[in-house]
Amino acid sequence: MKFDQINYFMSLALDLAHKAFQQDEVPVGAIIVNKHGDVIASQFNLKEKNQNPCHHAEVLAVTQACEKLNSWRLLDCDLYVTLEPCPMCLATLSQARLNNIYFGAYDPKGGAISLGFDLHKNELLNHKLGIYGGFKHLECSRLISSFFRQRRSAYKK
Amino acid sequence: MKFDQINYFMSLALDLAHKAFQQDEVPVGAIIVNKHGDVIASQFNLKEKNQNPCHHAEVLAVTQACEKLNSWRLLDCDLYVTLEPCPMCLATLSQARLNNIYFGAYDPKGGAISLGFDLHKNELLNHKLGIYGGFKHLECSRLISSFFRQRRSAYKK
Repeated sequence: MKFDQINYFMSLALDLAHKAFQQDEVPVGAIIVNKHGDVIASQFNLKEKNQNPCHHAEVLAVTQACEKLNSWRLLDCDLYVTLEPCPMCLATLSQARLNNIYFGAYDPKGGAISLGFDLHKNELLNHKLGIYGGFKHLECSRLISSFFRQRRSAYKK
Repeated sequence: MKFDQINYFMSLALDLAHKAFQQDEVPVGAIIVNKHGDVIASQFNLKEKNQNPCHHAEVLAVTQACEKLNSWRLLDCDLYVTLEPCPMCLATLSQARLNNIYFGAYDPKGGAISLGFDLHKNELLNHKLGIYGGFKHLECSRLISSFFRQRRSAYKK
């Protein structure tokens, strides 16, 4: 996978994160790409709108891709997401047998890797994921920071 | 919570696990109970039928309870499940802000606690879960063993 291809797919995920922002959701976007380079799922976080704690962008993308392929196994597919996955999402991506995960901004307070939940390395689990972070880090982290700054200032009013 | 109450709720979860078995799904059942003792969600594993890797009993129960309460926060609610939750499910239950988790059989190969993913103890996460295992252990583990024995014998034919 070339670096410019990763950045291209991350820019699609960023577009989705902007849509989440517009809907007052924590701005995270995710896409899933098959081995031919086709985007088979495009989702953003909808936890508040749907009042469902599972409806992070990654989980919604997994559901969409599984419906498209009529299979719970997303072998040979990669996921691009603008924020480091939380433990729930990383475990979901492992359950879905995804190939590689590329994420944007690191999330020191809630990201699975940052918290030390290195599921992808666990020898006891059947499936091993590749996980790589920091793509378009500045755009992704500025979007998140801007969202929470706006939210804090709204609370103060 | 009295021990006989826990066993009563676990028996309801076991009934659901038997339904999963009848549908050729890994037999795991889960219920969610509110602080008044009302059962607000009853689900069993439907991963194969739905071809969705997220559709473990616990995740389906969280979705059902959130729809019922119209909230992603299941504060003061407890979950009863016949098998030790996997890392995806334990992380989902933490995201949903559940109070206590009571599980049946330990799962040395796939259970979050057994694998060392002690999410519920992480000091960096906002929410702390109580998690207690081994209730109706024999019934729960025999049901699982019986399912995989049957499946192995079917493969051999």
